[in-house]
Formats: sequence, C-alpha cells, structure tokens
Amino acid sequence: MLLPESIQSLISALERLPGIGPKSASRLAFYLLRASDEVAQDLSVALANLKANTAFCQECFNITEAGRPLCEVCESPKRDSTLICVVEESLDVLAIERTGGYQGKYHVLQGVLSPIEGIGPDDLKIKQLAARVANGGVKEIILATNPSMEGDATALYLRQQLEPMGVKVTRLARGLPVGGDLEYADQNTLLRALSGRQEMN
Amino acid sequence: MLLPESIQSLISALERLPGIGPKSASRLAFYLLRASDEVAQDLSVALANLKANTAFCQECFNITEAGRPLCEVCESPKRDSTLICVVEESLDVLAIERTGGYQGKYHVLQGVLSPIEGIGPDDLKIKQLAARVANGGVKEIILATNPSMEGDATALYLRQQLEPMGVKVTRLARGLPVGGDLEYADQNTLLRALSGRQEMN
Repeated sequence: MLLPESIQSLISALERLPGIGPKSASRLAFYLLRASDEVAQDLSVALANLKANTAFCQECFNITEAGRPLCEVCESPKRDSTLICVVEESLDVLAIERTGGYQGKYHVLQGVLSPIEGIGPDDLKIKQLAARVANGGVKEIILATNPSMEGDATALYLRQQLEPMGVKVTRLARGLPVGGDLEYADQNTLLRALSGRQEMN
Repeated sequence: MLLPESIQSLISALERLPGIGPKSASRLAFYLLRASDEVAQDLSVALANLKANTAFCQECFNITEAGRPLCEVCESPKRDSTLICVVEESLDVLAIERTGGYQGKYHVLQGVLSPIEGIGPDDLKIKQLAARVANGGVKEIILATNPSMEGDATALYLRQQLEPMGVKVTRLARGLPVGGDLEYADQNTLLRALSGRQEMN
C-alpha cells in the first residue's frame, strides 16, 4: 500500500458516492489534501450535522429543518390547499418552486415504484397521500413523477388509487422541451408531442 | 430558502470541489441524506483526519503517513538510488508504481511552473531536487512531468538546472498510446511518434 491510510480511507468513502469513480475519488482526495484546511473541515462538519439537523415535513414529507413539524410550503397560508403536486423527491419540489408558476402544495413520495429494486407501494408515502385526500378539501392531484418507466408506472398506480376517491388526477404535459430541436428529439418524445398537440391561441 | 440550512451548507461545501457543479452537489447531498448514517459519517471522519494523519516524505516529498520521515519507496533498500523520476504529484508516483516497471526513486515537485497562476521555481520542490543531485550518487534524472505545456516548460527548466551538475537528464517518450488508433491521434502526437520512431528489434 503506497498511500497513507487516511487518504486511502477518504478515497474509499468518496468512491461510494454515485457518479464518482476511482479516478475522480483520488483526484478529489488529493485536491482536498492540497486545499486550505477550511475546505475539508467545512465539508466534514456539514456531513456530520446533515442527518441530525434535518427532518421530514409531517404533511408532505418534503425535507425540512429538525424541530419544525411542517415545511415552509405546508406552513404558508398563501398556498392553495386544494391542489397537491406529487413528486418523487425533495429536489423536484425545488425545481418546481424555481419556476415560480405553482401556488399549490406538494407531496413527496420519497421514491418510485420499482419491482426490480424491491420498492413497493408500502415503501413510498402513498398511504399518507391517500389520507390527505380522504381528509377532504383536495380538488386536484398533479402527478409530477419523472417521465421515466418507473415514474409512469407510479403515476398509473396512483391514478388507480386516487380517482375512485373522487379527486381529479392530472399528469404533467409531455412534448418537446423549450429551446429544443425537433431534429434531435427522440422518437417517443416526438410521438408524445404529436399526439398531445394543442390549438394555438 | 426552501432547503434546510444543514443541506444548503453541505451543497455549498460540495460545490467547491473541482468537477462538481451545483446540480451534482445537490444530487450528492440528497443521496447522502437517504443513504445509511454510516456513509456520511465515514466520509466526515475521513475528511477530519485527512491532514492530521498525513505528511510529506523528507527526501522525495511524496505523501506519507504522519510521523514517518520517509516514504515506503525512499525507505526501501531495494530501490535504485542512482535513478530519480521527477513527477508533478503523488498520484503520478502511484501511476508509475502500478506499471511495476520502475525500480528507481522519485521526486515529487508538488506542482508545475505556471506563470499564469503565479507558480515559480521557488514554489516547487526544485531546490530540494538539486540538493539530492548535489549530494552525489545520482546518475540519471527521468523527467516525468505531464506532456502538457506547463509540464514541458517545467521539464525544460529542470534540464537547464540539472545538466550542468553532470547528471544525465531524460524525458518520458512521446508517441501513440498503446491500443490507440492512428486515425484518431491528434496532429502533435502523430508528429512526435514520427520524429521519435525507433528501429524494430
């Protein structure tokens, strides 16, 4: 073993992160070694505090500060409680919030149905979503899971569960991305853009 | 601010690493949040211990365990002390060691000459290399800095400094990479492969 134990263990820890291979892990480790003490220490402290200082919102299961029962969106009296946008994870909430075009509430499933990975309905926050609908006051559920195989399957399952409860269930529109190029769009996207075509107004 | 402070600070700390942009930083932060406590804790501890447990070899300036004056290579009586391979950083030592084809010693410059970044000869371990040569016993210096503009400039500077001291100075061979494709080789590489052509034996 040519590398000191402390570097080797940092490289191993970095390698376990998604999208970081052995080469990037050693690059990062040596970068941290050369960088000012602060850089490594800040990261170390942020990691140590991560789980202790976060919790999940008791209503929508978005990530929130530890000690607060509800997240900012659920707490706000300005948000429309009749509308719930269902997403896979907290990052999706952020993405939608950044658009500034949504005034309803959210529900974070914390994953998608994935038989291959053994993730069934009970592993997601689906019961909790049904409970929110059963409590009344919800008019529309927007299914905003990813436009992937798992995301579509999850959306289909949710529709089957929720529609009988008398709530309107919608799904995010599919089509060409804004600024995209027709020539480079994949077949499925183009097919969805065609079949979902809308009258201009 | 929609994200809890502890996640936001982890994302900021991750963003400062090379090759990690805002998107990857948030992905990594949420991965760490979902992963078992162990993953984040291991990384936190490894980072905290990083600098305290490492030092530089007093002879070749390769990275080594704190408390040991010399690295494994410099300590070993089996290595050829008449041969010094000069590299930019510790990772390069690793790369050459992995080939298993080098039995000499090393010298880690800890960087390259770079006027743009304000890195001059005094910022590198060049004086210490000259001192090793001056101490006698060294027959050949292999310049193994990167085949980049800065690496070449550094090699040129080192040759000017070391050749007058009566030591043989060589540079790693340039040419086509093994398994490479002539058709895809860039112009400069092909030019070097042509001018450096060798008789087959």
